Amino acid sequence: MTLRINLNADLGESYGAWDMGRDVEILSTVTSANIACGFHAGDPLVMRRTLQHARQAGVGVGAHPSFPDLQGFGRRNMQIPAPELEAIIIYQLAALAGMAQAEGLRMEHVKPHGALNNMACADPTLAATVARAVRDFDPNLILLAPACSHLGAAGRAAGLRVVDEIFADRAYQDDGQLVPRSRPDAMIHGAEAALAHVSAMLAEQALISTNGVRIPAPIGSICVHGDSPDAVETARFLRAGLERMGYGLVSLSGV
Amino acid sequence: MTLRINLNADLGESYGAWDMGRDVEILSTVTSANIACGFHAGDPLVMRRTLQHARQAGVGVGAHPSFPDLQGFGRRNMQIPAPELEAIIIYQLAALAGMAQAEGLRMEHVKPHGALNNMACADPTLAATVARAVRDFDPNLILLAPACSHLGAAGRAAGLRVVDEIFADRAYQDDGQLVPRSRPDAMIHGAEAALAHVSAMLAEQALISTNGVRIPAPIGSICVHGDSPDAVETARFLRAGLERMGYGLVSLSGV
Amino acid sequence: MTLRINLNADLGESYGAWDMGRDVEILSTVTSANIACGFHAGDPLVMRRTLQHARQAGVGVGAHPSFPDLQGFGRRNMQIPAPELEAIIIYQLAALAGMAQAEGLRMEHVKPHGALNNMACADPTLAATVARAVRDFDPNLILLAPACSHLGAAGRAAGLRVVDEIFADRAYQDDGQLVPRSRPDAMIHGAEAALAHVSAMLAEQALISTNGVRIPAPIGSICVHGDSPDAVETARFLRAGLERMGYGLVSLSGV
Amino acid sequence: MTLRINLNADLGESYGAWDMGRDVEILSTVTSANIACGFHAGDPLVMRRTLQHARQAGVGVGAHPSFPDLQGFGRRNMQIPAPELEAIIIYQLAALAGMAQAEGLRMEHVKPHGALNNMACADPTLAATVARAVRDFDPNLILLAPACSHLGAAGRAAGLRVVDEIFADRAYQDDGQLVPRSRPDAMIHGAEAALAHVSAMLAEQALISTNGVRIPAPIGSICVHGDSPDAVETARFLRAGLERMGYGLVSLSGV
Repeated sequence: MTLRINLNADLGESYGAWDMGRDVEILSTVTSANIACGFHAGDPLVMRRTLQHARQAGVGVGAHPSFPDLQGFGRRNMQIPAPELEAIIIYQLAALAGMAQAEGLRMEHVKPHGALNNMACADPTLAATVARAVRDFDPNLILLAPACSHLGAAGRAAGLRVVDEIFADRAYQDDGQLVPRSRPDAMIHGAEAALAHVSAMLAEQALISTNGVRIPAPIGSICVHGDSPDAVETARFLRAGLERMGYGLVSLSGV
Repeated sequence: MTLRINLNADLGESYGAWDMGRDVEILSTVTSANIACGFHAGDPLVMRRTLQHARQAGVGVGAHPSFPDLQGFGRRNMQIPAPELEAIIIYQLAALAGMAQAEGLRMEHVKPHGALNNMACADPTLAATVARAVRDFDPNLILLAPACSHLGAAGRAAGLRVVDEIFADRAYQDDGQLVPRSRPDAMIHGAEAALAHVSAMLAEQALISTNGVRIPAPIGSICVHGDSPDAVETARFLRAGLERMGYGLVSLSGV
Repeated sequence: MTLRINLNADLGESYGAWDMGRDVEILSTVTSANIACGFHAGDPLVMRRTLQHARQAGVGVGAHPSFPDLQGFGRRNMQIPAPELEAIIIYQLAALAGMAQAEGLRMEHVKPHGALNNMACADPTLAATVARAVRDFDPNLILLAPACSHLGAAGRAAGLRVVDEIFADRAYQDDGQLVPRSRPDAMIHGAEAALAHVSAMLAEQALISTNGVRIPAPIGSICVHGDSPDAVETARFLRAGLERMGYGLVSLSGV
Repeated sequence: MTLRINLNADLGESYGAWDMGRDVEILSTVTSANIACGFHAGDPLVMRRTLQHARQAGVGVGAHPSFPDLQGFGRRNMQIPAPELEAIIIYQLAALAGMAQAEGLRMEHVKPHGALNNMACADPTLAATVARAVRDFDPNLILLAPACSHLGAAGRAAGLRVVDEIFADRAYQDDGQLVPRSRPDAMIHGAEAALAHVSAMLAEQALISTNGVRIPAPIGSICVHGDSPDAVETARFLRAGLERMGYGLVSLSGV
């Protein structure tokens, strides 16, 4: 039996005349793409082209729904009543799923974006709202959630298949939460350190904190970034390292 | 065999804190609803609730895609390159189709909104772009188009099923086009005159111009309005009259 | 010497094809208008026409800036970094001030809208950000703030002239805060009760809580609503009552 | 007496998380900046920072108003009724003028953006609407318009001061209009050719067509681009060449 792992990245975050990200390069490296749905980035044409590129690259596609906040790139916390937020999420899932279908693809997964994701990871009520929206739209979708997050727990409670992701370039605290970016030890620097960090956690199927504490988690995916040349290089190095270690790189439905 | 006819109206055109239209009343009268998809009106929560109301009323649902122009309510002509316009339309179709599916409904039809519809009725190239977008999204969708329009012709050329609609309250010119609103004889005033106008055209399966010219057209639907108490009354009168005349009122898939 | 008081209401909250509020009626009753600036309501044409109507009615005009949230009508809490929020507020003040000037009017005041106002009333840091934006744009503007709010305090600390407002239809707690709408005693019902509530507070220049506690405050304005026939009637009744009591109704610069 | 000329460029066209243009470099080269006002690009924070950078660089500032079309970057033709378009333009002028004032700057000029500019150059009625909006906002503003355009003529007819601009990298037809980009001879390639093209037209105070036809025009400004390293280099080369030729580079109020 081959060990299998997923590499995911956010894609399709251009908008109109504005380009963002190195989508073509990153698509040659990852195995699942979280595609912006128009609420924080990604207009319809960007979405369509991103889906076409993902199909050519053989990469699994998922929706990356956001708070409705184009100017803030979905990074600003918003308080939205649950019925409205559910509709907002379902709208975005529907838009991407239907556009994927029109390109001959089946949308496999959902990963909330930015502030919506961060808030849902920390707030069980909001996490339940997100999970309910996903399930109401399509109970067969995979929810991609940070390991040890309320979002992942809510997805499982809603009957969804959840895949836990870790971050290649972020350090963890003893409770499984990310070290805040404000702390000097928040980031894992360099591709080799990132690979070592990731491979240790995969081998133990646990988050490993800066203090060496192990928090068991069924890790299925690694989140990488594609917004700088360095990030693309790191992602490629990670993938090559994982392949050398015998991992099969798969889309989320194959984890 | 029963004669069958469809009654359609635009619905779900509220937005956020702003209400528009008498949707609940009109849903008890029409048999197909053209539902705004968020680009000229209709936010996700409005769309979801409109779909739920349509389901309760047993009314067929379709997408009412628009130019991206919330402030102008989709009534302002825009020149959008074909690849972008196709993506814009597919996005809206996808959003409504997926939201409908989440409510246990199957989206049956598409009717472009406002300036997009008007421009596509008059411009064969734009009409072909619209038809291509519909077909690329789902070739089984019905295109609801004004009788004798380039839009209907383009839909048929693209292999779509097209249903031709007439307007209960508008007079026609000898070439089958509507009398422009700037002319004093543009409108048919009063519910009885509207019913007489409609029933004559249905009986002859032809548009009948103000000069009495007949332009053959396979009329399948009548467009009514729901934005005023008068309009709702007229729609009800029309429906009752058609039923008295033996017509079965059906959604577009039943025409 | 005549006692002077201001009556203010939110106006210009239509948007595109959607109407809201009974602006013309309310303009014949109030003496200052808080005009939406396009971020929660009020497109440029609505703004221009509202300014023209205010000029005809001889009503003082002010800006009613909001979080950038058209779909949520500015009622949803958002977390926006201070430099960005300052720019967002200054942009809206500038837009309204310049449009007012083009109509021969001088913008007199600023009253934040919805969630921005509520959050700034409760959070001293956010209140300081709002006050700084107003001062940086024009230190001669009057800040209209709820009596006993952090917003008013921040305005004074920034060197702005602040006018304290009370609500005709809302009950107060012992600490000067509004009774939350979730409580059954939140609202003052009926025009006569509202007038009695208001006149007692004006006479004592203090908020009067449901328990009879007095919290001194230099009350300069009364906020009324204009979104229903009842609200307009209440506002007219209040104004007539205040005039009978000898108050001169003035715009904010006259308080 | 020194010969004086203005160099202008479009600036402040980033939006939210998306960067565009090499604003800092171009600000060291041009003498007037056309600053986006939020309708095609430029959110409030981008506008504020662009104004601050322009102040530091000593560059004159003007508004660059657009159709309301963020996703299309203001490049898509739109048909907007005159009263609404006037309000849309005044809103943008007001926003930029007020933000400039808050930074200690006086807005000097207006240059319409993209499709609004192109349409107004070719359509006298639309040109008159634009000119009226500028005059109604502030009759002392300078209208920056392409030489030999209907826009410039409408500005003069409205009593505005108009400065005529030429394009350093575009060839002209015998009627003074630009050679369409679809033609192979539309562009002037290379910095030296651009300088020769510009200096010949300045010396003769006339547009010079590809056929050598002279169309007299009181040229006051040269439009340069700042969106690529090449463009910045060309602009610098132009400026240096003009200075060597004895031209004083001035903002529009100094032309």
